[in-house]
Amino acid sequence: MKMDARCTYCLLSRVHYEAQLSTNDTELIHKTMLAGIDVLKETYKPGVPAGVVSTAIHRKAYEVLNDEDPYFELRQLSNRIAEKVYPYAHSLVHDGDPTDEEMFRRAVLASVIGNFFDFGIMGFDVGEDVFDETFAEIFRTGLDVDDTSEMFGMLDDVVYVVDNCGEIILDTLVFDIIRKVGGKITLVVRGAPMLTDVTMENVRELELDKKVDRVLTTGSNAVGVCFEEAPAEFIDALGKASLIISKGMANYETMSERNFGPIAYLLRTKCEAVAEDMGLEMGYSVAKLVR
Amino acid sequence: MKMDARCTYCLLSRVHYEAQLSTNDTELIHKTMLAGIDVLKETYKPGVPAGVVSTAIHRKAYEVLNDEDPYFELRQLSNRIAEKVYPYAHSLVHDGDPTDEEMFRRAVLASVIGNFFDFGIMGFDVGEDVFDETFAEIFRTGLDVDDTSEMFGMLDDVVYVVDNCGEIILDTLVFDIIRKVGGKITLVVRGAPMLTDVTMENVRELELDKKVDRVLTTGSNAVGVCFEEAPAEFIDALGKASLIISKGMANYETMSERNFGPIAYLLRTKCEAVAEDMGLEMGYSVAKLVR
Repeated sequence: MKMDARCTYCLLSRVHYEAQLSTNDTELIHKTMLAGIDVLKETYKPGVPAGVVSTAIHRKAYEVLNDEDPYFELRQLSNRIAEKVYPYAHSLVHDGDPTDEEMFRRAVLASVIGNFFDFGIMGFDVGEDVFDETFAEIFRTGLDVDDTSEMFGMLDDVVYVVDNCGEIILDTLVFDIIRKVGGKITLVVRGAPMLTDVTMENVRELELDKKVDRVLTTGSNAVGVCFEEAPAEFIDALGKASLIISKGMANYETMSERNFGPIAYLLRTKCEAVAEDMGLEMGYSVAKLVR
Repeated sequence: MKMDARCTYCLLSRVHYEAQLSTNDTELIHKTMLAGIDVLKETYKPGVPAGVVSTAIHRKAYEVLNDEDPYFELRQLSNRIAEKVYPYAHSLVHDGDPTDEEMFRRAVLASVIGNFFDFGIMGFDVGEDVFDETFAEIFRTGLDVDDTSEMFGMLDDVVYVVDNCGEIILDTLVFDIIRKVGGKITLVVRGAPMLTDVTMENVRELELDKKVDRVLTTGSNAVGVCFEEAPAEFIDALGKASLIISKGMANYETMSERNFGPIAYLLRTKCEAVAEDMGLEMGYSVAKLVR
């Protein structure tokens, strides 16, 4: 996906958000914003991939803030909130002895709702207090784009590129069904901390390695996937997968720049730019298969 | 008021908003955003007055868009909406034979609610359909900061620096009371089109000159008041006024950089930066006198 004009101010608002997470020093916050403006000036031009600009601006912000991980506590918080909602989500997925395919559809829906867990995106801060209610409401609405029936026949060798903490807990509902029907899972997490994205440290904490067959990383802290920085093992896995599952907007923004496939994008359309790029509306729960 | 770090992305979002009002040409919208980023890079530094940056960025956007007045139609629309709500507002102000002071308080409240009419500020687009309801609700809540009793004794020679179209229709409720108690009014509008602000053209259309004693302009299309571009007549009037009434956030941002007074700021706190600078909360209805 290419950079949209609206990404400019959204990225700056996110830089401000992480600056405030990192410091109370007003001068340092100004300095971080100024550095963000410099990055926009240097990298933003019509046609540039969105991921190039977002990776550059967040890396620069972290550098100016001298903070490797402004979102550390928020990642922990997201996981704790998701753990609270997990039993309810699990019961919804398994309620009434459904078929494996129906369970898969529901688990995908739960994991897409998990993608709603995303602090710091303008206008979409979901507080802990409203999450249970929001979860139930979106679950009732169901998937707005539902290619899960097609996906269900392609689960032999899945490469699952995850997104945020919090939602990762709900992704495990999908892992369970893939393994139940005999599929293998290669989990791919970020190579280093970026925003609220899952890292190897989170994998260890949450013992995610026990839920999947193999864990790889994207090789860097790029927002989404930067292929120039990706390990050969990961690229190889993408090439051999029976199905790639790409969670969230940042992975969509970057994976959609290449032709790996078949690939299923699981996400909530939380911004107009991504929704329009996918030919969808804002606020959709999406499981879209691209062959 | 000094530029806040949050003004950066809010200004860029507003540049995008007016670019979309002006054109459907995606390349031109990108070009306008890039020019806005250039202006931020050139003008934003800690301690710079907010009005310097906002004036520069909007002027540059208008120049790149080759559009003297992207908000022309929106100004007309704001006035038509306000005209519809005016009879209801008038009845609320005059209901039950109140004292002049009570009427003044209510008229000020109505004009502050009018300040809610402001298209293009992130998160505060008020559509036509919700306006009646919003108006009634805020009127019931009343003023959160209410210095109208003090203001009421200072109405001999008022300089009234107006803000947006739409709200100007409700400002006339205040004009009526000032004249009823024998006060004189110097109305001050923008010297040329900027955002949805009232211009001399709007004064003529709405026959506002019949409602006041004198009409002046700020001398330019600066956002708020740029004193370097202000006519001597206006500066002179500010110096002699028994009370200056400054409507809206942009006038607050710029008038608060000088020491003219006594001055009453009538506005809704529609952004965190202005609210914090005034020591108030977001979403307040404010009539604050500064001596």
